[in-house]
Amino acid sequence: MPMIRFDDNPLITPADVKPSRPDFEVVCVFNAGVIRLGGEILLLLRVAERPRPQPGELLAPMLCPDDPSKGLEVLRVRSGSPDVEEIDSRVFKYQGSTYLTSISHLRPARSKDGRNFTVADTPAVFPACREEEFGIEDPRITRIGDRFYVNYSAISRMGISTGLAVTRDFVTYERMGIIFVPDNRDVTVFPEKIGGLYVCYHRPVSGMFGRADMWLATSPDLLRWGDHKYVAGTRPGMWDCRRIGGGAVPFRTSKGWLEIYHGVDDAQRYCLGAMLADGERPERIIARSPAPVLSPEAPYEREGFFGNVVFTCGAVAEPDGRVIVYYGAADWCVAAAETTIDELLASVR
Amino acid sequence: MPMIRFDDNPLITPADVKPSRPDFEVVCVFNAGVIRLGGEILLLLRVAERPRPQPGELLAPMLCPDDPSKGLEVLRVRSGSPDVEEIDSRVFKYQGSTYLTSISHLRPARSKDGRNFTVADTPAVFPACREEEFGIEDPRITRIGDRFYVNYSAISRMGISTGLAVTRDFVTYERMGIIFVPDNRDVTVFPEKIGGLYVCYHRPVSGMFGRADMWLATSPDLLRWGDHKYVAGTRPGMWDCRRIGGGAVPFRTSKGWLEIYHGVDDAQRYCLGAMLADGERPERIIARSPAPVLSPEAPYEREGFFGNVVFTCGAVAEPDGRVIVYYGAADWCVAAAETTIDELLASVR
Repeated sequence: MPMIRFDDNPLITPADVKPSRPDFEVVCVFNAGVIRLGGEILLLLRVAERPRPQPGELLAPMLCPDDPSKGLEVLRVRSGSPDVEEIDSRVFKYQGSTYLTSISHLRPARSKDGRNFTVADTPAVFPACREEEFGIEDPRITRIGDRFYVNYSAISRMGISTGLAVTRDFVTYERMGIIFVPDNRDVTVFPEKIGGLYVCYHRPVSGMFGRADMWLATSPDLLRWGDHKYVAGTRPGMWDCRRIGGGAVPFRTSKGWLEIYHGVDDAQRYCLGAMLADGERPERIIARSPAPVLSPEAPYEREGFFGNVVFTCGAVAEPDGRVIVYYGAADWCVAAAETTIDELLASVR
Repeated sequence: MPMIRFDDNPLITPADVKPSRPDFEVVCVFNAGVIRLGGEILLLLRVAERPRPQPGELLAPMLCPDDPSKGLEVLRVRSGSPDVEEIDSRVFKYQGSTYLTSISHLRPARSKDGRNFTVADTPAVFPACREEEFGIEDPRITRIGDRFYVNYSAISRMGISTGLAVTRDFVTYERMGIIFVPDNRDVTVFPEKIGGLYVCYHRPVSGMFGRADMWLATSPDLLRWGDHKYVAGTRPGMWDCRRIGGGAVPFRTSKGWLEIYHGVDDAQRYCLGAMLADGERPERIIARSPAPVLSPEAPYEREGFFGNVVFTCGAVAEPDGRVIVYYGAADWCVAAAETTIDELLASVR
């Protein structure tokens, strides 16, 4: 196993994060985008909140269904009612419609050493439109020039789409629009153009054919994507047999692009692996992890809001060859692990 | 009901179409793209074929799974086997994977009067790559300048994506690439740019949230699409409560864009309706059919390969205000019905 967990894991837990309003509690802080910014590491955290539930109550916080500009509302239903179906800790169905038990926003945290983080007191990007009525999740940050592009999952009754925002300072963000339609998430935008076009991996879902595979798209403007190429699928009998999706923003190595991705098995266990992609045609996968590079084994990875999960939205590839992978553990907290480019390259087949 | 069926319906049936090879039979000819071309009406038919099955046999014709360039193969399974699940006449599952019982290609038919068609003896666009391994379906034709853009559903184990091809003569076609990823179909490209960009409606599916709604996207090059806007959804309790999707390529009227779309109800009945969209911002739907403009009522619409279906991929809006809608009936044959722009505009609320 080429990844070494930080001794001080978990780095950030819900206790470190102020809720966005006094009647809410933070239940999860995880799946953070990451960027090196001058002398600091900046994480853009996914913070999931909810009102404190009463016993026997299921809650779904969301933007006002009739008018998202009116702010948050809470759907309250009784657990065990005939019109309620509890799926897991994250999701329930009520009268045939799907709801989330928490609503996520994005919030920065900063650190000089990459281990001790100061979490902002208030949200940076909060759900604001009907495509985001159930929350915004799992940001990835790509630096291109002096701009930082943040893509995130936008969840609503219409499904899981992917939105794009841009910032220069992580203070002011401009929403650019929806770049992928339901259900599509796990978008990782490459940090440079290839062949004159922006490039990303994305992860659409085919309900009819039961697939959740990675594809590549190109774009002239970061907002409109197409000429899609199939990249990689699930592998029967392996650790990534059920679903896969992009994780960290890819980074260039001497051998090609390295993508740290997540795979899910039939037991709903989320692990991390690596793919090595052709430097000029990154839809071509040269090699891939036969076994996970990180599996949920530590206590904070095995138990949490949704257990047995390690899931990354970003890594820092340092000039000295070290790679720090920040990851969400058990859908509950932020942790990190260290490896090197050489070890990752040596681990793929 | 403002639509009047042609007396000579159905216009084209499988008996009118030669199979692409002697061991195949044509089971369906339907869902045709349409364009007026000089003095002729050209239909680009969806032709669905299969090998003649033996009793008790389920067949899935497809491109060779290991190497699509090797041409067609046939999966043969026993009906009633424990590892076979028969979904309907179109689809079965075998060992957990989804297969189609026929494979579709595109083939032109031409007519001087729009009623009597001569069907080409051979396919024009045949499945050729792994995104198309289970067939290409439901073409829509959009004329832009002297080029005809044909988008079609590309079906494979990866799901239902949408491909784009271009032709100048309906003899030679160039595939441009995949424009929408699984599951996304029912793409209708507008015949002119709006605000300097190409525009289309498309119909992604959210498995997690159980939605099949219409969205709008824009593109600088027809190949890369984004800045997606939600357009219209299903309507509980109405004829389009289960699924909707674009049908004919939209055409301009004095009141805005007219889109003839299909809606599906809980009984899997496919009807046609109309939407009137803002002329400059066609993501804004001004009015919509309270009741279908065409429902499956004629015998050839009620019974066929998959009954109770009327489904359009194209209409011809004549300069005199007449609108001829060509449609697939019961997933089996091609039919047509006539109305006027005024009647369609009067029918929406």
